[in-house]
This record gives sequence, C-alpha cells and structure tokens, in this order.
Amino acid sequence: MVSFLVDNIGELVTNLPGTGEGGLLGIRRKAAVLVEEGDIAWIGPSRYAPAADRRIDAQGGAVLPGFVDSHAHLVFAGDRAAEFAARMAGEPYTGGGIRTTVAATRAADDDLLRDNVERLRSEALRQGTTTIEIKSGYGLTVADEARSLRIAAEFTPETTFLGAHVVPPEYANRADDYVGLVCGPMLRAARPHARWIDVFCEKGAFDADHARAILTVGKDAGLGVRVHANQLGPGEGVQLAVELEAASADHCTHLSRADVDALAGSRTVATLLPGAEFSTRSPYPDARRLLDAGATVALATDCNPGSSYTSSMPFCVALAVREMGMTPAEAVWAATAGGARALRRDDVGVIRPGARADLVLLDAPTHLHLAYRPGVPLVTKVLHNGAPQ
Amino acid sequence: MVSFLVDNIGELVTNLPGTGEGGLLGIRRKAAVLVEEGDIAWIGPSRYAPAADRRIDAQGGAVLPGFVDSHAHLVFAGDRAAEFAARMAGEPYTGGGIRTTVAATRAADDDLLRDNVERLRSEALRQGTTTIEIKSGYGLTVADEARSLRIAAEFTPETTFLGAHVVPPEYANRADDYVGLVCGPMLRAARPHARWIDVFCEKGAFDADHARAILTVGKDAGLGVRVHANQLGPGEGVQLAVELEAASADHCTHLSRADVDALAGSRTVATLLPGAEFSTRSPYPDARRLLDAGATVALATDCNPGSSYTSSMPFCVALAVREMGMTPAEAVWAATAGGARALRRDDVGVIRPGARADLVLLDAPTHLHLAYRPGVPLVTKVLHNGAPQ
Ligand SMILES: [Zn+2]
Ligand SMILES: [Zn+2]
Repeated sequence: MVSFLVDNIGELVTNLPGTGEGGLLGIRRKAAVLVEEGDIAWIGPSRYAPAADRRIDAQGGAVLPGFVDSHAHLVFAGDRAAEFAARMAGEPYTGGGIRTTVAATRAADDDLLRDNVERLRSEALRQGTTTIEIKSGYGLTVADEARSLRIAAEFTPETTFLGAHVVPPEYANRADDYVGLVCGPMLRAARPHARWIDVFCEKGAFDADHARAILTVGKDAGLGVRVHANQLGPGEGVQLAVELEAASADHCTHLSRADVDALAGSRTVATLLPGAEFSTRSPYPDARRLLDAGATVALATDCNPGSSYTSSMPFCVALAVREMGMTPAEAVWAATAGGARALRRDDVGVIRPGARADLVLLDAPTHLHLAYRPGVPLVTKVLHNGAPQ
Repeated sequence: MVSFLVDNIGELVTNLPGTGEGGLLGIRRKAAVLVEEGDIAWIGPSRYAPAADRRIDAQGGAVLPGFVDSHAHLVFAGDRAAEFAARMAGEPYTGGGIRTTVAATRAADDDLLRDNVERLRSEALRQGTTTIEIKSGYGLTVADEARSLRIAAEFTPETTFLGAHVVPPEYANRADDYVGLVCGPMLRAARPHARWIDVFCEKGAFDADHARAILTVGKDAGLGVRVHANQLGPGEGVQLAVELEAASADHCTHLSRADVDALAGSRTVATLLPGAEFSTRSPYPDARRLLDAGATVALATDCNPGSSYTSSMPFCVALAVREMGMTPAEAVWAATAGGARALRRDDVGVIRPGARADLVLLDAPTHLHLAYRPGVPLVTKVLHNGAPQ
C-alpha cells in the first residue's frame, strides 16, 4: 500500500488535549503527518518528516481529523421539499412527515435505496465526513427494517436499528402491538446488520416505558444504546439514556437542570443536531449550558429528508458557534472527537499514531474559518482510511 | 465560438414572471437552453432544441441564472479570524475592526491584493456567482482607493468607490476634512475605475449630511449611487438613498414604517445581507415586511473579512428563508434578478434570449433545495459568459 506524507500543514488539529500548543484541540504548527497502511504512522514537525511514497501538500492550510457524523438517516426514498417550502411559508406542519417517507421507502427497490445512500454518503465525504452512522427507521416492517440495515451496513459499521421511529399507520392505536413486533421479530431480523439500537422517545412517538422496553431488549441482544431525546419538548428521554448507559442522547433541545446534571455525571454524550432546528425554525439547544456543566457534546447532521436535509458538518459547526454558544474550537472538537465519543470509538476523531488516517484539508489557515466563513466549501481534500478521495 | 446546448433540465428558473408555470420564477420543465457567442440564443422544450456544437447534460436537475452578488468588499489584505472568535466567545467588540484591515491593505503590494480578489472571486464563481460587485474602502487614501478600484476593475465592471467607509485614524476628529478629501482628490482619482459611489451612513461612520455631500458630488461626476444604510440602528440612510434615487440601500436592518414605505415607493432596491447578521450575531432584517409593502429585495453576501466573510450566495438564500421570512422562490429571485436590479442590469439574473449566458446547474431537482439542503454545495457546474467554468 502506498504511503503518504501530508506536509506543509499550517495548523494541525490533533484533538490530543495538552499536546502541541495545548488547549482542547492540541494544535501543532508547521507539522506533517505520515500515513501508512491506512493508519497514521507518525506526526511531528515538518523538518523531521520521514520519507513516503507520495507527498500531499496542504499548502499551509489547516488539517483536521475527518468529521464524525454520529446521527444520520440515509436509507430512504423520495424527498419532502414541498413540505419544507410549506413550513417555511408558515403553513402548519401536518405531521404526515415521517410516514410520507415510510411509504416511499417501502415502495422503493433495493437499488434505489442503495443509490440514495451512496449519493448522500459521497456528498458527506466530499465535505469531510469520514465516519458516518446510518439509521433504519423508514421501513417499519420486519423485512423493510432488515433490508434498510443490510443496505446501511454496506456503507458503514455504525448502523442503528430505529424500528421505533414512529408507530406506522397500520398499527395506529395499537402501539403496544407494534412495540411487541419491534422487540421480537423485527429486532431478530435487524440484529445481524446493526451495531446500535435507538428509539424516538417523544410525545407522538414512543413514551418512556415503551422506549425502555425496546432499548433494554436491544441491549440484552448485544446492541449499543442511543436515544432520540427531548427534541420537541421536555421528556424522560435523557434520563432514560443515562439510566441505560446509552452512548448518546440525541437532540437535547429541551433539558431540565436534572437532565443536564445527569448527562454531566454520565458517559452519555449529548449529541446536538442544529440542522434540525435550522430546518424546522425551532429554538436551538443550549450547548454552552451543557459544556459548562461538564457534559460531553457532539455535533451531527441528523441528515434526513424531513427535518434536516443537510449532510454538511461544516454547516453544523458554523451554526453551533452562531446559535448554541460554542467556541469554534469546541464546535470543531464536537464534530470530530465528540462524534467519536458518541460512537464509543477511539480510532477516529483524533490524529495520533495508530489512529485511522482520516484527514480533512482546508483551504483556510485555521479551524476558526469553519465558523468564520459560513457556507463556503473550504474542504479541499479528504483522506479516508489513508486513501485520497 | 463554440455553442452549447444545456439539455435535460428538470426545472429551469427563468425569472420571467408569468411565463412557463408562471409565478415569480417563470419555471419551465423539461427545458433546454442554447448558448451562442456568450449569450442565451434560445430557450424552449427539450424536444424542439436546435443543434449545438456541444451538449451539457443537466441530469434532470435545476438550472438557474447565475447569482448576482451586488455587495462585496474583496480588495483587502489579512483576515480577522481572531476578532471573530473573540466576538463569538462574548468578548466585547472593540471597534478596531475596519481599521485593522485598512492598515493591512495599505501595507500590501498590488499582487497580494490582486491574488486575494482572485481567490475570493474564484471561490464565489464555483458557488454560482457570475456577477459580482466589488467595493474599495480599505485604502482610504487617494492612492490606495484608486489602486483598490483599479484592481477591482480587472475583475468586474461593477466597481464601487467607498472612500467613505470609515474616517481613517489620521483624520480622527477631522471628519469634515476627510469628507473634503473624499469629495475632491479621492473622487477624481477613483472616478476612472468606478461605476458606483457608496457611503457607510451610520453612527460611528458618516452622518446623513456628510453622506449626502459625498453621494451628490459622486452622482454629479457620473457615478451611480448606493448606500450602506440602517445596519446597526435606525438612521437617515434609507431616506437619503431614496432621495438620491440610489440603485440600492444595503443592509436595511433597522427600518421605520416610513423607511419601508419610501423604499416601496421608489426604484431603490433593499439589499439584505444576512451573512453580516449571522457573523455578528445580530437580529436579521425583516424581508417579509419589505416584500409585503411592495419593495424590491435583493440578497448579497457583504463578503468582507470583518463582519461577513462568506462568499456563498446559496448560504444567503438559506438564511433568508430561515431567518427573514422569505419563501425559497423569493430568496432565489432576490439572489439573481434582485441583485441585477440592484445593479440596474437587465442582461443578467434572467434566462431569456439575448441575456448573458450565466447559468448555474444544481445537483438537485428544484430551486427549493438551496434552502431545503442548507450548507450542502449543490452547484455542480457554472457557465459564465457562455463558457463552462
Ligand atoms: Zn434523528
Ligand atoms: Zn458592506
């Protein structure tokens, strides 16, 4: 396998706190990174760099760990642009949303679903996302959830079974029956293709008792736990996530003091999804409050056709700084190392010898520019598993 | 010159109201566009398309007029990333801002300034901006304003003399003297390279009397009038713009009922710059109120290193929909035809035979996706003056 030396790096964000210039991001200047066999083999000052088969010139720009997008719903068919336009024009949200996508997804063949995942995954990769979690949740039958996860697993090891996204129309007023299906045959069919289990714990979706039942049986089956929690209003989702030692509680828009304290006292990451608030014109979660309390915060896209159809982690970084009280350094950390924590990974979201060689090169001298230059496509080159994309 | 047929267009935004499907954007489906000699030669149904030397496949996506960015400050040196980060961390804005860039710009040689304009203009073009206005305003000496405009004129005919950006430090407490300089020797030196004159009419910059004097003498010298008006607080800028028949009043963040009415009853376009509010964490202007009153609204980037370092018109469209009450169609119109109005141009911002062949191809089926998919680089191809970029 060809080795690469990424050289002439103006600012290297390692995410190794206390190294280099110190601080959260462990920044080094005038650095180089040696990539061998898909991994990072060496980092250090440019002038001591070892030889490599090929040299990649960072042109004095910033180099970051690839973004880790720990929350995305990519297995679906159709789009909901008209619903979006109606919402922005002030027309009431009819709630038909997720079910529209469920119908389109069920009607689609495997190739259509696969092509859509590939399109969005490529789009995300071009914008620097080198690790992505992909959820099911638009099938909501045993067969459709299993195939959603089978397709997702072709693209990432971070697959999440979200059979409990909403109660599908054919189970209207029979939520208990649907929960039984999720906990039994659907989980058995999903299990071989999934690493994680997730529940949308919210009024109108699944209550805390149903969520606890589903997550517990999933955990017993060997899946890691994640929870869609406290997005649309206060609720028990965050407390449940902490109780079950979930890797992540996602959204966290409406939190009580007790919720914040519970997160801060746990290993459960608060994953914030500002693309959802942007696209639904909702108030943003308060990242500052979580950080000040000592909670670990991740940023992710929530990429989905209804409430957040962005694949752009740089956009989420810019929003987090503008709207959620994060510093640029905190937002960059949350979009890289934070996402890795939310997926309980230590081989990504960091630039150190032995970590996976996932690197993002910016047409900008520092990481600050991701927030300072909002909307501008600054990612010029991406290495994924050591391979230039 | 080679002719091109842009074919397989899913949605063609012509900006010819009442044509095609009607509405503001004059949308046509399954259309084709013939480009000859840098101009649009024909538009019509794909199946009747005439022959051309080459075919460009829009792959069923949306095709729009190139964006018209009618407000950008591209002639400068240095950046102010640290100032941005401090502001986002809540540290007080010291106001040293523009003067920092003035010092760096004066110290820079021509090539450095030219390279910086070229870098940003290319970046904007990749994102679909085919017409861009460029202001001086970081020189603030006779020689430095003249060279800023000379360099700007290498890139665009839409050059704007903004000697009255701020009072430079060497004229502290001598604003009258500086206004005299701007109206006399500086205007004479700038005139050969400028199409427009502009004043930053705001508390802390230039009051209405000074602004009127400068704009009037510029107008008498044959320059078109534009005004930085009502950005940081209420003021006389908008009324002055209307009084002087300015092509555009820019920012319009703090408007009285009388200001809105004055704009609505005039040919002066209200150019809104949401990148500035994003990057200074300020309240957004109310586009809805202006539109409902009958004013013409344009969107532009305000690209500058202090208060809005974005070159992305798609980002401004998404912000306008999220934050300013515009529909996606209104925002797309404002970023194309609206910008053309603000520059008193009828050959750009529109797709009709005889107009300049400036076209943007999207990796998206409709214009809605510019707001529906925020932050995602959807522009896949740009034709500028009929030439694929
Ligand atoms: Zn989600
Ligand atoms: Zn400006």
